[in-house]
Amino acid sequence: MAKPTRVALLDGGAMFAKEYQMFWNVPSELTISIPSYSVLIDHQDGLFLFDTGFDLHHFNDVVAPGTAAATQTLEQTLPAQLKLLGLTPDDITHVVNSHYHFDHCGGNKHCRHAKTVCHACELEASLDPQPFEALAYSDFSFLPEIDAPRALDIYTPYFETLTGDQEIAAGMHLFETPGHTAGHYSLMVKPAGRRPMLFTGDACYAQKGLDLMAIPSTHIDPVKGYRSLERIKSLSEKHDAEIFFSHDATSYKDYIKAPAWYE
Amino acid sequence: MAKPTRVALLDGGAMFAKEYQMFWNVPSELTISIPSYSVLIDHQDGLFLFDTGFDLHHFNDVVAPGTAAATQTLEQTLPAQLKLLGLTPDDITHVVNSHYHFDHCGGNKHCRHAKTVCHACELEASLDPQPFEALAYSDFSFLPEIDAPRALDIYTPYFETLTGDQEIAAGMHLFETPGHTAGHYSLMVKPAGRRPMLFTGDACYAQKGLDLMAIPSTHIDPVKGYRSLERIKSLSEKHDAEIFFSHDATSYKDYIKAPAWYE
Repeated sequence: MAKPTRVALLDGGAMFAKEYQMFWNVPSELTISIPSYSVLIDHQDGLFLFDTGFDLHHFNDVVAPGTAAATQTLEQTLPAQLKLLGLTPDDITHVVNSHYHFDHCGGNKHCRHAKTVCHACELEASLDPQPFEALAYSDFSFLPEIDAPRALDIYTPYFETLTGDQEIAAGMHLFETPGHTAGHYSLMVKPAGRRPMLFTGDACYAQKGLDLMAIPSTHIDPVKGYRSLERIKSLSEKHDAEIFFSHDATSYKDYIKAPAWYE
Repeated sequence: MAKPTRVALLDGGAMFAKEYQMFWNVPSELTISIPSYSVLIDHQDGLFLFDTGFDLHHFNDVVAPGTAAATQTLEQTLPAQLKLLGLTPDDITHVVNSHYHFDHCGGNKHCRHAKTVCHACELEASLDPQPFEALAYSDFSFLPEIDAPRALDIYTPYFETLTGDQEIAAGMHLFETPGHTAGHYSLMVKPAGRRPMLFTGDACYAQKGLDLMAIPSTHIDPVKGYRSLERIKSLSEKHDAEIFFSHDATSYKDYIKAPAWYE
């Protein structure tokens, strides 16, 4: 009998920004908290991570100077969060990234035995970003040789790119949701004993984004981004999936975090 | 001998917004003035208008409620500005619009004898806007039947769409500069006795946009928008053209306005 799938959310701290920096064309100047977390899926085919949060050192060195702030305790690092569950980064078999912005791949480098999976368009875009994307695509610390020649063949240790919607393991679906970035994936996973969980990634930061149909202020294609918002809604309805937003302080308070499981 | 070309700027009042609403990814919360003007070109082939500003009644009825502000005196309306030069809207032979956002076509309706010219992609996009563009494309008062069936054949009195860069009259060049909208044109015109004038339209609101390489916050394609910023710079250098920005309060103070001419 198959091992029942379960899911844990690994808290990764928070960043801070103005609401208008998060929701395009929403002129709110409130400073809001932007929680960051990784999704661990304990599946019969392996231990999967969907996104790995931000690295505080990278944030402070590269992103923050004069412009932004983030908090992350030692307990909110990926190794410490896995330890809550009796695991280490070496146990992770697959790292799937919604996209390669620094706050979604900052923990990848800890997972040295994992296969790394992303959308083919995301890999291409991240290695040759638009000028306005350069800061977002600034953390390639999981690619030790990336700052030498930026070549597609240096990904380590195992790399796989995908296109189209994909069922990467039984009950684990990646859905194309571009717009925020060129090759963005959202993840739907069905734990054994509950309704499916739909992790939007940055296709939709928060409930407010869906309510206002406001795409992220950071985007490469607002037309596709709007369609991805519509897709998130539609997928949630079609599969009776509960939506888990990437950066929603209000919703995040109610999410169950590790060491507890969704199962 | 050809009649010498001359150019007049017709003041059209101003709107107000936060800087972050103007320059994408520039987190300035200053409230700034957004001047609006039309460009009159007195050319041997006719009297051309490039853009026609906003209509205050439309702005107050449709755009403003609770969110925005604009000032426009009676003297800043298109008919009053033309009167400064001894002209009336009936004298205009061609209206060329950089794009169809409400603050660039609000005076079109006065010019009932003019041929109306825009990029083919702009016409298509304006008649079927993205959801996030609906407010920007809200003034079609120059198309009396537009709110009946939105059909391409109802443009009045004479309509012409273009694609590609075009020399629409001797020394008057339209350059494709998309990104802010789908079919945006910038205009370069050479008065008889001075260097060429490059009117950016909303491909570049202001000197600050060029300095920071910050595209307008309002856009349909930021990748194309960035390239259009680069193109504006390149065209200016290649043709030794003086750049005239669409909405730059600082630069606008130094522009010569009607009844004076650039000639």
